[in-house]
Amino acid sequence: MDLRTSYQQTSHQLSGHGKRTVGVLQQAFAEVDPNQVSDHYGTGEVIMRFEQKMAQELGMEDAIFFPSGTMAQQIALRIWADETGNRNVAYHPLCHLEIHEQDGLKELHHLEAILLGDDDRLMTLDEVKALPDVACLLIELPQRELGGYLPPFKELETISQYCRERGIRLHLDGARLLETLPYYEKTAEEVCALFDSVYVSFYKGIGGIAGAILAGPKPFCADARVWKRRYGGDLIGLYPYIIPADYYYELRKDRMGTYVEQAKELARRFNAIDGVWTTPEVPVTNMFHLHLEGDDEAVAARIQSVQETTGVGVTGYLVPHDHYCSTEISIGDAYGEIDEHQLNRLFEQLEQ
Amino acid sequence: MDLRTSYQQTSHQLSGHGKRTVGVLQQAFAEVDPNQVSDHYGTGEVIMRFEQKMAQELGMEDAIFFPSGTMAQQIALRIWADETGNRNVAYHPLCHLEIHEQDGLKELHHLEAILLGDDDRLMTLDEVKALPDVACLLIELPQRELGGYLPPFKELETISQYCRERGIRLHLDGARLLETLPYYEKTAEEVCALFDSVYVSFYKGIGGIAGAILAGPKPFCADARVWKRRYGGDLIGLYPYIIPADYYYELRKDRMGTYVEQAKELARRFNAIDGVWTTPEVPVTNMFHLHLEGDDEAVAARIQSVQETTGVGVTGYLVPHDHYCSTEISIGDAYGEIDEHQLNRLFEQLEQ
Repeated sequence: MDLRTSYQQTSHQLSGHGKRTVGVLQQAFAEVDPNQVSDHYGTGEVIMRFEQKMAQELGMEDAIFFPSGTMAQQIALRIWADETGNRNVAYHPLCHLEIHEQDGLKELHHLEAILLGDDDRLMTLDEVKALPDVACLLIELPQRELGGYLPPFKELETISQYCRERGIRLHLDGARLLETLPYYEKTAEEVCALFDSVYVSFYKGIGGIAGAILAGPKPFCADARVWKRRYGGDLIGLYPYIIPADYYYELRKDRMGTYVEQAKELARRFNAIDGVWTTPEVPVTNMFHLHLEGDDEAVAARIQSVQETTGVGVTGYLVPHDHYCSTEISIGDAYGEIDEHQLNRLFEQLEQ
Repeated sequence: MDLRTSYQQTSHQLSGHGKRTVGVLQQAFAEVDPNQVSDHYGTGEVIMRFEQKMAQELGMEDAIFFPSGTMAQQIALRIWADETGNRNVAYHPLCHLEIHEQDGLKELHHLEAILLGDDDRLMTLDEVKALPDVACLLIELPQRELGGYLPPFKELETISQYCRERGIRLHLDGARLLETLPYYEKTAEEVCALFDSVYVSFYKGIGGIAGAILAGPKPFCADARVWKRRYGGDLIGLYPYIIPADYYYELRKDRMGTYVEQAKELARRFNAIDGVWTTPEVPVTNMFHLHLEGDDEAVAARIQSVQETTGVGVTGYLVPHDHYCSTEISIGDAYGEIDEHQLNRLFEQLEQ
C-alpha cells in the first residue's frame, strides 16, 4: 500500500472537512425547494442575490460568481493591465498564477510577471517599493505555498497606501481570506478596504464544492462579466456551485477562530517531537507546513504506520527535500471529530 | 404582463424538458451513493469513466469533460491553429463563436475567422472549396441560429474528404449532435468519423444542467487538458455537471427520433395557419424557427392571449423583422406532456 491509499483508508483526518464526496452536494441541496429556478447566464435570483451578499460582506461595490479562482484572477489582472496600459504585473514566485495554471496568464493575455519575495519567505515592503511600473500587485493572504504566513496588518496598510500613491492596482488573492481574520482581528470588509479587487474561494476553509467570487468597483466588474463570457465561464447554470457555496459559507464562516486555535495546538504538539517541526512554528491561520526529518521512504513508512494503527490520517503525500520531507496541514471540521484519546495515540505512535 | 412573464406562468410548454429548476439536479442525484468520491482536477473515476464512455460513443480516441462548449471550442480551434501554424479558421457567420462569446476567440487567441455561408442559409461546398488556407473549418450540425438546417450527409462526406486532402482540420460543433441522427440515419460514431474533433453539449436535447465533451485524437486531447487548466476550467470537482450529464444522456439519448417526429407534426400545424410559417418548413431535427406576420406588439399580444387562455407556452421572446416576428421551438419531453385537447385549443386560439 502507498501513503495516498493509506490516507484514504483512514476514518478520521487532521485536515479538511471530511472526504470530498457527493454527500457534500446532497447535504447542501437537501432542503432546497425543487421548484427554485436555475440562474441563467449570470442572471436570476440565485446568482444575483449571492453576488450582492458577497459584495456586501467584502465591502466592495459589486461581485461576480466564477466557476474558478484561476479564471477570476487572470481576468482581474488583465482588466487592471488594460486600464493602466501596462503589461506588467507583480506577485510572489509561489503565486497560484505562477505555479498552478500552466502559464494561462502569459498564454492567454501576454502579461509579464515580476516576482517579489522568495520560495521561503513573503515579499517585503522594500521589495514592493523597488518595483518598476506595474499595472497591478497581487498579494495572497495567507501565502498558501509557504504554509500560511501573513504580513502584519500595518505593513499591508503601508503597501496599500504606497500602491495608491503610485497608481498600482492592488489585488487580493483571498482564496483563504476568512481564515486570516482571527489573526488580524479585522472584518473581511476591513481587510478588503486596502485592495482594489478581491478574489475569495468557496472550497478551502468554507468547504463548498468549487467556485469563487471576484469583487471590485462596478466598472471593473462590468468588464469582468464580459471576460467571464469570453472564457466560457458564464454557464447557463452555476447554481450547482452557488447553493453549496452559500450553504457552507453560512455553516463555517464563524468557525475560523476555532480552526486557528486548533492549528496552533496541533502545531505545538508536532514541534514537541524530535526531528519534527512546523512552519510557521506558531500558525497564524488554520494551516501550516509539517516537516519530518528523514528521506521520503522512511518518513512515508513512519506516517503510514501511524495512520494504520490509529485510523487518523496525517497526510497522503510528501514533498521530499534534502534530509527531510514536508506536507500541508489545514484544519477544518474533521479535526474536531477526532477524540482526545485517538489524538494522544497518534502522537505516541509518531514519537516512537 | 410581458410575453416573458406570460410564458413563465404557463403550466406546459411546446419547447424543452420542463422548467430549469433545482429539481433537475436533485433528480439526477437522488439515487447516487453519498459516499461516491468527487473527481479531483480532471482525475478520478467519476470524470474518467464518463470521458471514456463518451469517447467510445463518439468513436474518438479520447474525450474531455468541460464546464462549457464556449471553452471547449475555442480551445479546439486554438490547438488546430497551433498544429498547422495557421491563424485562420473558418465557420458560418451565425456560429456560436462569432455571435455569443464576446469575441473570446479573437481576444484570447488572436485567431482570424473567415465566414462561410450567410444569415439565411448554410455554407455551400463551393464556398468550402474557395477557402484560402485555414487551420480549421468548423461545421455546426444542425445550424441552430437558422432554425436547425442540416446539409445532406453526402455533402458532409465530400467536405470531409476535401478538407483531409487539403490538410484543413474539420471540427464539429455538435452541441445538438444526437438530434441530427434520426435524419441522417447514422450513429454518432458514423457522423463523427468525418471530423477531426467534436464538441457535444449536455443541456440541449439531453437536458442536463451544463457541461460539454470535447473529443478527438489523443495528442489533441492532451493539449486540450493543458488549455482547460489555463482557462480555469479544470475544477477541483466537475461532478455536479457530470453526474446529471450522464443521467440525462441515458434518459433521453434514444428519444431523439420521437422529438423529431413531434417537431415535424407541430410545424405542419403551424404552417396550416395563414400568416404563420416555419423554417425549415419540414424540420430535420427537433427544432425549427416559427414566424408570425405582424409587428412585435401585435404578435406578442396574440401569443400572450393564447398562452393565458390555454396554459400552453409557445415562447417568451420574439425577434422582430420587417412585417413579421420569429422565435425558436425546440422539442423535448415537455411537448409530450401536453394533451391533444390542450393542443387543439392552442391552434384554435392561434387561428382566431
